[in-house]
Amino acid sequence: MKCTITSFNNNRIKDTAALLKQARARREQDAFVVEGIRMCREIPKGKLVSLYLSEELASRAGGSISEPDPALQDLISYAKSKGEGVLEVVKQDVFERMADTKSPQGILAVVRQFRYEEADLLKQESPLLLALENLQDPGNLGTMFRSGEASGIGGILMSKDTVDVYNPKVIRSTMGSVFRVPFFYTEDFCGSIRQLQSRGIQTCAAHLQGSESYEAYDYKKPTVFIIGNEGNGLTKEATEAAACRLKIPMEGQVESLNAATAATVLLFEAARQRRN
Amino acid sequence: MKCTITSFNNNRIKDTAALLKQARARREQDAFVVEGIRMCREIPKGKLVSLYLSEELASRAGGSISEPDPALQDLISYAKSKGEGVLEVVKQDVFERMADTKSPQGILAVVRQFRYEEADLLKQESPLLLALENLQDPGNLGTMFRSGEASGIGGILMSKDTVDVYNPKVIRSTMGSVFRVPFFYTEDFCGSIRQLQSRGIQTCAAHLQGSESYEAYDYKKPTVFIIGNEGNGLTKEATEAAACRLKIPMEGQVESLNAATAATVLLFEAARQRRN
Repeated sequence: MKCTITSFNNNRIKDTAALLKQARARREQDAFVVEGIRMCREIPKGKLVSLYLSEELASRAGGSISEPDPALQDLISYAKSKGEGVLEVVKQDVFERMADTKSPQGILAVVRQFRYEEADLLKQESPLLLALENLQDPGNLGTMFRSGEASGIGGILMSKDTVDVYNPKVIRSTMGSVFRVPFFYTEDFCGSIRQLQSRGIQTCAAHLQGSESYEAYDYKKPTVFIIGNEGNGLTKEATEAAACRLKIPMEGQVESLNAATAATVLLFEAARQRRN
Repeated sequence: MKCTITSFNNNRIKDTAALLKQARARREQDAFVVEGIRMCREIPKGKLVSLYLSEELASRAGGSISEPDPALQDLISYAKSKGEGVLEVVKQDVFERMADTKSPQGILAVVRQFRYEEADLLKQESPLLLALENLQDPGNLGTMFRSGEASGIGGILMSKDTVDVYNPKVIRSTMGSVFRVPFFYTEDFCGSIRQLQSRGIQTCAAHLQGSESYEAYDYKKPTVFIIGNEGNGLTKEATEAAACRLKIPMEGQVESLNAATAATVLLFEAARQRRN
């Protein structure tokens, strides 16, 4: 494959670099960036906008179907077939400057943003959800997508001040779960919680002053776990909007758990109950 | 308090900066660095080697016992009482250059390393342990200390190629649990596992090809959870040294869980069983 982009001043390269850096550019372009072989393999094809290969990877990928990896070759062929300008080969140093990672793997995709409605989170027979208020750490949010998918959640509801899910660090730490777990940013977090409660979903706030241990509840019932900001926990309003406060008992002198750790404990207890 | 160190060329400042950067310097000095107000508050006093305050923090801390925080003031008074040179006030820019964090809080302690024997991990009536093989991510190891303390473990056994527990990123992410959870680096990881088994501790390897779901086991019994490297999982040898392989069932298309997440799921299931 021939190198088609050789300068960092190319407008498409500039737009893509902006997608990595600015939430605003991501909103305006209605797109986000996915980097690396492992993550690119999992992109739902219909969502692909464009695919950039470094010169080096392109020369390895060549024309052969088995190199460097079938799922990836499949994506490359698909990009090629979508018409001119979808697949681009980028000069090595330009690619490296554009990428967000320190050692880019030579593949980067621009992907259309997802459009979920709040109702898309409720498609399970007995919904299991996560609701996050003002979560700020990209790694935590990514981990929650991954733990969430693994424990079988129907979706993630987020307050509008939660970190941008399309932030490249979030995308990376979801390990692909972001492509499969529905999510929704709500303008009115407490209103959404109350609405879930009125639909018969038990609204459980994880709280250090919770009255009962988390394992005392029945999570075969429709359930949403509500988790607060890393430093400050849940706001008073969100805590009051929830029907119950549960605590995770802690030994030793630990004051609190990391937000993603707390979510993991709750979600896998729900998964365990639902299996048994 | 008067500023006692004004140059980055001061030998003690250079030694301290080395403790932050090199595992070798930490071994040679038999010490490590703890940064920030929250972490310094929890240092076991007998372990304190020296305490550095930035000019700015020192002027706030002043002579008053209630400022900036009683536990911290207590540590400062203790350092003062230990004799000349234990408490030092460092010029602002020198302090900032020495610290590992981007926005240092103006307090940094040099702390003596811990000396545990393998037997120190086995002091619980019914031991609950974590054994880590070649774990590499500092944040993961720190999280495991925190989750481990919260779920009531007796200690953490590590293969000698596991990341250095005294790495400042590990220390930070333990949130203080490193001061309270015994740990030991073993030269012969598989030998240690077999020895635990021979002492009547069930040796449970977390494994993607595990035969049974983790909740099928009784963790009121003495138990060690064995967790492998982030990218490669457990070696064949370590898997074979363990008496059982357990899996964490996963929904969706998740291929594996993050190592710290897997440890958290197992540890909190053990804690749940031991409470009930």
